[in-house]
Amino acid sequence: MSDNPVVVGTGLTKIGRRWEDSLSDLFAEASRQAIEEAGIQPQVVFVGNMVAGELDGQEHLGLALEDGAGAFPLVPAFKVESACSSGGSALLAGYMAVKSGVYDSALVVGVEKLSEEPSDSITTALAEAADADFESYYGASFTSLNALLMRSYMKDYNVPRDWLSEIAVMMHKNAVDNPYAQLRKAITVEDVNRSRVIADPIRLLDCSPTGDGAAAILLTRPELAKGDVQVELAGMGVGVDTIGVNGRTSLSDVPATARAAKAAFSAAKIEPKDLNVLEVHDAFTIMAALALEDIGVVGKGEGAKFFHEGNAERDGKLPVNPEGGLKARGHPVGATGVYGAVEVVRQLQGKAGKMQVPRAEIGAFHNLGGSGSHAVIGVFKRKR
Amino acid sequence: MSDNPVVVGTGLTKIGRRWEDSLSDLFAEASRQAIEEAGIQPQVVFVGNMVAGELDGQEHLGLALEDGAGAFPLVPAFKVESACSSGGSALLAGYMAVKSGVYDSALVVGVEKLSEEPSDSITTALAEAADADFESYYGASFTSLNALLMRSYMKDYNVPRDWLSEIAVMMHKNAVDNPYAQLRKAITVEDVNRSRVIADPIRLLDCSPTGDGAAAILLTRPELAKGDVQVELAGMGVGVDTIGVNGRTSLSDVPATARAAKAAFSAAKIEPKDLNVLEVHDAFTIMAALALEDIGVVGKGEGAKFFHEGNAERDGKLPVNPEGGLKARGHPVGATGVYGAVEVVRQLQGKAGKMQVPRAEIGAFHNLGGSGSHAVIGVFKRKR
Repeated sequence: MSDNPVVVGTGLTKIGRRWEDSLSDLFAEASRQAIEEAGIQPQVVFVGNMVAGELDGQEHLGLALEDGAGAFPLVPAFKVESACSSGGSALLAGYMAVKSGVYDSALVVGVEKLSEEPSDSITTALAEAADADFESYYGASFTSLNALLMRSYMKDYNVPRDWLSEIAVMMHKNAVDNPYAQLRKAITVEDVNRSRVIADPIRLLDCSPTGDGAAAILLTRPELAKGDVQVELAGMGVGVDTIGVNGRTSLSDVPATARAAKAAFSAAKIEPKDLNVLEVHDAFTIMAALALEDIGVVGKGEGAKFFHEGNAERDGKLPVNPEGGLKARGHPVGATGVYGAVEVVRQLQGKAGKMQVPRAEIGAFHNLGGSGSHAVIGVFKRKR
Repeated sequence: MSDNPVVVGTGLTKIGRRWEDSLSDLFAEASRQAIEEAGIQPQVVFVGNMVAGELDGQEHLGLALEDGAGAFPLVPAFKVESACSSGGSALLAGYMAVKSGVYDSALVVGVEKLSEEPSDSITTALAEAADADFESYYGASFTSLNALLMRSYMKDYNVPRDWLSEIAVMMHKNAVDNPYAQLRKAITVEDVNRSRVIADPIRLLDCSPTGDGAAAILLTRPELAKGDVQVELAGMGVGVDTIGVNGRTSLSDVPATARAAKAAFSAAKIEPKDLNVLEVHDAFTIMAALALEDIGVVGKGEGAKFFHEGNAERDGKLPVNPEGGLKARGHPVGATGVYGAVEVVRQLQGKAGKMQVPRAEIGAFHNLGGSGSHAVIGVFKRKR
């Protein structure tokens, strides 16, 4: 097998209500940045997207976006879908495409557009990530399924409500500095605790917002990269669990994340303690706490405490989501995994501006699909 | 990069109106055959499917099918989508997964279920493969877009109508021997010419039927394969063109196919004349004629004549679609590419029964998405 692919270009759009922009426009905006930075064209494109078929009536999405965007000459393009982890899965496809030698360069674009639809259509579309026959049919929404996990976790480990609220507070504080973030507004623990109940115990400010956005990353073989500082995609891992929460033995952990971490860290030859920066999939505050535990940064039941003690701050032991995470940067579903990957890359490149964390040599992103049923983790290393 | 993957197991379901079977059931039926034959479990699954999100309200499809089928322990699973070429694209993902060394074994399953819906829902769902803004919105269906190509081709090359009808006749004759085929009924040129007009000049018997079905193929690294006869996936190629027919300079060829052929044959180090068997994507009779030309088997305008002269029969110069093709074996959209791949593999293994063609050492399948906008070609070789 070949060497690991390196990252030669990245692109991000601001997340939010992009009413004036089509899916193709968002795709073009992120792709152009990545290609311009790289100075090379992609030979293949992998698109991470979840709901364009349902909400926009467009399948054949890879080619449709490429053709609609006109940002570069047409090349083979594919949609890769695994619910909210579609972005991470598209990156896995790009990783394999270059590592296998089948393609010399691969552009991975996560893109999603949610803001034009009424919120009940979005809830229905996102519920397609759950089990259609055994969850969605009975009215289970994503928030209600995550509420089960939050309640179980708080009870099993005697975790105070405020500690979970503090996670939201930290994410909002980080996002204030992020020009691409959807919610650039600091909040307090009080704000979270008094926000309206969505699915008890989850309150509005425990939830990530829905929005529109696109993120792009261009991979190539190391010998084809131009320029100096190179960031390597050193390993990826995917872990799965039953699609329905009803099939699990515990509601206080996400074994899919643990499996993904094991595979990714083994491929990249690192351990959790080697990480200098980490992006986790905090679609709800509870998921940030669980991610740290399942990734192996802390022991079981210690995730929320790690945040409470300030260890996840930009100057803490292990900075987590220094750009604000899904909670405040935003969660354009199929794009989210690629946002996490780009943010880690920019930290390792020293290009994170006000959000920069110290000593960023090794970083990872975590991207979750369904109610903890499909986890993707990617490890990036700065090459010396 | 590693050696090319080898095929260690295949599975097919009969195509048709499988009202009693869910998508998961079809997935399970094909997967179980492939795994049983291989004697090894897959480490990852790639699902080719186009319309389950639209018609069944199920995204996160890879994991949903795996979990619903219960045919093997859960492993990472992804949906790969590129309209009617989704099956071929899923195989490309499996090829890259094994060739890159990221996974030791990959199960590729094409699966689609169309028969439970009213035909207008199907037409709408399939139109998502066309350009939503510039084709579907104006009422263009797949049949009408293909009718443009058929009319243009007949005019440009002065091709008699009967020669295209004869393609349908040969496909139906071949399918009579195929236990998995949807339409096992011989027809005549008269039958085609008198069948009702769908979109002039395309008549009902020029069209492939919609149906339900699943096909599976299990790939692994050569050193992990058990048993004797091994078929290698020697190369794959993908070619693209504008998603809308309006963007093309000619309506009498499919350049995407020519690009895919060039890439696949170069990777496999063969030429068109080396092929002993070929599966082409004859969603409409016109597409079979065009495929032979764009793949390079014959010159421009000579595709229909090749069929007319009997060269594509099982005992002809180059047997084409000896199992009946999309036209008569059936066209379960996202599954079709994997059917073609499995049929080529079984020919090379000498397992094609009454459909067996002589001297099958090298074969290829061709899978087309959209109105000639996305072509996938895979070349298989029998290892000696």
